[in-house]
Amino acid sequence: MSEGTREQVLEVAARGRAAAADLAPLPRGVKDAALHAIADALTARAEEILKANAVDVERAREGGTPAYMLDRLALSADRLAQIADAVREVAGLPDPVGEVVRGGTLPNGLELRQLRVPLGVVGIIYEGRPNVTVDAAALTLKSGNAVLLRGSSSAYDSNVALVDVMRDALAGTGVPGDAIQLVPGRDRESVKHLMRARGLVDVLIPRGGASLINSVVEESTVPVIETGVGNCTVYVDAAADVEMALDILVNAKTQRPSVCNAAETFLVHKDVADAFVPRALAALRDKGVTVHGDERVREYGGDAENIVAATEEDYRTEYLSLDIAAAVVDSLDDAVRHIRAYSSGHTEAIITDSQQAAKRFVALVDSAAVAVNASTRFTDGGEFGFGAEIGISTQKLHARGPMGLPELTSTKYVITGEGHLRGV
Amino acid sequence: MSEGTREQVLEVAARGRAAAADLAPLPRGVKDAALHAIADALTARAEEILKANAVDVERAREGGTPAYMLDRLALSADRLAQIADAVREVAGLPDPVGEVVRGGTLPNGLELRQLRVPLGVVGIIYEGRPNVTVDAAALTLKSGNAVLLRGSSSAYDSNVALVDVMRDALAGTGVPGDAIQLVPGRDRESVKHLMRARGLVDVLIPRGGASLINSVVEESTVPVIETGVGNCTVYVDAAADVEMALDILVNAKTQRPSVCNAAETFLVHKDVADAFVPRALAALRDKGVTVHGDERVREYGGDAENIVAATEEDYRTEYLSLDIAAAVVDSLDDAVRHIRAYSSGHTEAIITDSQQAAKRFVALVDSAAVAVNASTRFTDGGEFGFGAEIGISTQKLHARGPMGLPELTSTKYVITGEGHLRGV
Repeated sequence: MSEGTREQVLEVAARGRAAAADLAPLPRGVKDAALHAIADALTARAEEILKANAVDVERAREGGTPAYMLDRLALSADRLAQIADAVREVAGLPDPVGEVVRGGTLPNGLELRQLRVPLGVVGIIYEGRPNVTVDAAALTLKSGNAVLLRGSSSAYDSNVALVDVMRDALAGTGVPGDAIQLVPGRDRESVKHLMRARGLVDVLIPRGGASLINSVVEESTVPVIETGVGNCTVYVDAAADVEMALDILVNAKTQRPSVCNAAETFLVHKDVADAFVPRALAALRDKGVTVHGDERVREYGGDAENIVAATEEDYRTEYLSLDIAAAVVDSLDDAVRHIRAYSSGHTEAIITDSQQAAKRFVALVDSAAVAVNASTRFTDGGEFGFGAEIGISTQKLHARGPMGLPELTSTKYVITGEGHLRGV
Repeated sequence: MSEGTREQVLEVAARGRAAAADLAPLPRGVKDAALHAIADALTARAEEILKANAVDVERAREGGTPAYMLDRLALSADRLAQIADAVREVAGLPDPVGEVVRGGTLPNGLELRQLRVPLGVVGIIYEGRPNVTVDAAALTLKSGNAVLLRGSSSAYDSNVALVDVMRDALAGTGVPGDAIQLVPGRDRESVKHLMRARGLVDVLIPRGGASLINSVVEESTVPVIETGVGNCTVYVDAAADVEMALDILVNAKTQRPSVCNAAETFLVHKDVADAFVPRALAALRDKGVTVHGDERVREYGGDAENIVAATEEDYRTEYLSLDIAAAVVDSLDDAVRHIRAYSSGHTEAIITDSQQAAKRFVALVDSAAVAVNASTRFTDGGEFGFGAEIGISTQKLHARGPMGLPELTSTKYVITGEGHLRGV
């Protein structure tokens, strides 16, 4: 594997572009057979993949990588089998390519159809999770795209092995091997070359923390879809069912704190604060959650150890841990203002029995998803029935919210006539 | 009007952002009434608009601006009336906001709906056509977006007058005045500030030549939708009806040469070259078209004055004039390769009676629109029945092809439960 010079990255991108042209017209059966071949190869060649993974894990351990990151990095025979099963599930999903989005006959007799087509070459920049290497390859292949994978250098050996196995599996399936490629290089420079490969790469999807995403947005001339930063809010309205609000808050914060659709802030209408806040603080304490509260929240806390003063920065923070920011607000509109100021635009929930309050909150909150009387944790491609997701977009262009297979496509208009000429 | 410092541009963007929040939930009736008020004001205050426009035209004339550009710049009472009528037509179009894109009940009983919502703040960067100032304002207002208009400095006085009239007309309609704003400043610097106003501006739509669009793509951190560069191709297949091919070629090239959906290249399969090329050259000569042909095309041209040798650059060129590049190709696949190498991805047409050839061409050509036995000129929001268009996207993300009102929206997921918690 090379060092990731500009020429090397552009060469890989150009090979991706050529593969994309061959991939686009492939029928579903060819793509699904290739996905099954990949799934089978991942388990058949588990030994060499696990050996490569062990090198990454050992290096990371020596480098003092924290346990939760080692856990994400480490593969096992079981995990590999799960990853292979996920590939088989993608094979079972409907093929978005060729779907007629709209179609009909124009008054002049021209037949107009808008069809889904692959995006072309999709670049994914992601953290040290080898499962993403396979998930992303499966979803892009199914949607007829060539993928350029740029995982974290911490997973480099695992990714080289996984990509080798997947590429080998494509031989003889009709899917070009260059449908799946690793971007050469371990350093930041090679990412920069990828971000400037405009005309060769159709879209970049950074998956990871806010700093990675911001640097890609700042430097990329290739169009970017921002994913995955979730500073989500639970707003407990004056007309909330307090029991329901407690359950949802605890679920949204603690059911899986490390994911983007976990809650990071709760806001409480002043009229329900007496009834809600003391019980919420107790329930969160029982789950080991530290509450970063404003003055009005802290008044309910007594001298409980799990309650600390919130700074402005707390309201902006995606903790991904057993921490939550909190404030009492004077009105629903104040809650909306707070959300507009601090949210990352992922998911906000309102707990209310008032139709009017729910309607206003839904109308005014400008986020990818708004939940009414439900946990923020439901914003997820699997939960939404999309079968799988490449990420959760927090931007407004192209795709917003969980991105399934259709979100990995563009469209093409096909105009069919019988010698039609334009008059004016 | 200020000079367009960074602070001034960001202040305008922030005002747009606040207006967008108020605009988003407005019902259709309020927006349509505002559009009618704008249309009425444009004719009622025609005199001051025309006076301002005369200043621009005079300045341009003194600066030696070519006649066709003066023609685009100049307004008249009649043109103003047409522009006002176009605004009334936009008022009559369906409101895309609130449309349910998908919806249903998930197995766990959660109700999931994906609704169209405005993008937010839309920046339009465009050339010296004052009609775009009004068209863009009408389309963005109807789709619930705040607009930041940055027209060419050549139309500055006209744009100031038009925006004044439109903003005044909004008074009392319920639509905030800051829904329509001119970006201050006449120089390139103010455009740069707009391109860096990430977080305040949701999308930039540059309308104009390739160099403007490339510079925006290169420098913008705000997401960009590329529009309007059309290097379109007509491919005459071996199985073409020669008469039909001649009519389509002449229509696509000459019916309105200055627009992005006019043809700029024609390719001819070698098997039909004897029958087609001599007649095409004659027909194009009759219309005053200069053909930039490859060697094989020129063999058919004798010593006709309108036939010159094509350079590599000719195949890349969007002439927008009575010029066309031409080549004879050995196969449909060679035509596709030519298109992949040189086309801007706008519209390519095939003339063929073969189902198989048409199918292959449609599948392999990666452009926003592919026409079969029809002129390239049909790629147009009006022709497609969209009622109006903000531009024709040649990129694959978000919108591709003519962009009507729905393409000026994003979506939002609304999840409604009864205390739903996530288990796994």
